Amino acid sequence: MRVECFLTKKRRSLKKPDNFYIALLHFPVYNRRREVVTAAVANMDIHDIARAATTYGVNSFYIVTPIPKQHDLIGKILNHWLEGYGSDFNPSRREAFEIVRLKRTLEEVREDISESSGRRAKIIATGANLSAKGSISTNQLRGLIQGSADPFVMIFGTGSGLTDEIVNSADYRLMPIAGFTDYNHLSVRSAVSIVLDRLWGKV
Amino acid sequence: MRVECFLTKKRRSLKKPDNFYIALLHFPVYNRRREVVTAAVANMDIHDIARAATTYGVNSFYIVTPIPKQHDLIGKILNHWLEGYGSDFNPSRREAFEIVRLKRTLEEVREDISESSGRRAKIIATGANLSAKGSISTNQLRGLIQGSADPFVMIFGTGSGLTDEIVNSADYRLMPIAGFTDYNHLSVRSAVSIVLDRLWGKV
Repeated sequence: MRVECFLTKKRRSLKKPDNFYIALLHFPVYNRRREVVTAAVANMDIHDIARAATTYGVNSFYIVTPIPKQHDLIGKILNHWLEGYGSDFNPSRREAFEIVRLKRTLEEVREDISESSGRRAKIIATGANLSAKGSISTNQLRGLIQGSADPFVMIFGTGSGLTDEIVNSADYRLMPIAGFTDYNHLSVRSAVSIVLDRLWGKV
Repeated sequence: MRVECFLTKKRRSLKKPDNFYIALLHFPVYNRRREVVTAAVANMDIHDIARAATTYGVNSFYIVTPIPKQHDLIGKILNHWLEGYGSDFNPSRREAFEIVRLKRTLEEVREDISESSGRRAKIIATGANLSAKGSISTNQLRGLIQGSADPFVMIFGTGSGLTDEIVNSADYRLMPIAGFTDYNHLSVRSAVSIVLDRLWGKV
C-alpha cells in the first residue's frame, strides 16, 4: 500500500509532454486474412480518439490514409465540428477536433512534426500481437519521451493491425496491453485510450 | 524507478476477480440540458465495452434500458453475433458478447447478480463530474473488491451521465479520470476501457 502511495505522488507530478503525437494508420494494415489493405476511416475513431488525445494533452492526432475520397469525407466531418453547426452545438467536440490532422502517409506525418519541432520524430509501433521480447513498457517509454528533446509519434493500426514492415521499421515497439484473459481484441478506440492513460493518466 | 518495479510486480500478480460486474445505464441519465432522459443504445458501445470487459475478465456486462423496442433491437444484434452469421464470421466477437446481459433497471441487474452469487451487489457510480471529495480511487476500489465476498457492479451513464439521485444512492463513487488537461469529455467507451485497465490491467 505504501508503495502505491509513492507511485501516486510521482504520477500526479507528471508534466505534460510537448513532444508526443499519435497517428492512426489506415494503410498499410492487415485484414483478417493477413492481406495488406487500406481500411476505411471510421467516424467513431475520429471522435473517440480526438477526445482521448485532448484529455491527455497529445500535441496532434494524425489520421493517415492515402485515399483522396476519404480526405474529402473526413475534411467535411472535421469542418462540421470545427466551423459548421457542430461547433456551436458541441464546443467540447470542436476543442477535441482542433488537434486532428489529416495526412496521406506516415512520412508526411514525420515531415509535419519536423516542420513544427525542427527534429525528426521517433516512431513507436503498437499492436495486440507484438512480442514482449524487443518491446518496451509504457513506463520505459514515458521515461524515454520525458528524457528526450526528440518528438515521438505513436502509431496505431486499424483493420487487423499494422504490417510487419511498419512494425519492424519503427524505432520502438510497445508491449501489448494485457488484461486478465488471453482475449486480445480491444477496439483501436479502447487501445488508444488505455495506452494514453497508462502513459499520462494521473492515477 | 525502484518503486515502479515493486508496483509492476504487485499488479502482475493480481488474481482475476470473480465478483466484479459492469453496467451501462441508458436511464435515468441527463441530456446536455440536464433533463432526465432515456438515451438510445449505441451499437458501438455494445461492441467496444463487451470487448474491453472480456479482456479484463469482468463477470457480466449489463446493458440497461427500460424501452421494450430497444430490447428487441439489441436482442437481434446480440443474436447475430452469438448465433447468427457473425458468430462464424468473427468468433472473437461472439466470445465478447457471451458476457452481455440485457436488463430493464439497475434493480434487475442486482437481482440477477443475487441469483448467481447469493449476495446483494454493492454499486459503484462513475462520472466525469463527480467530486473528488467522497470518491474513492481505483487503487482503493481494487482493495475493497479483493477483500470482500460481496459482488460489486460499476455503473456508467450514457448521454451526459448518471443522475444525481443514482450517484448519491450508490455505495461508492469513483474519482473521475484525470488526464493532463481540464478536458473531461471522454466517450463512455474510452472511460470504461480506462477504468478497467486501471483496476485490472497488468502494467
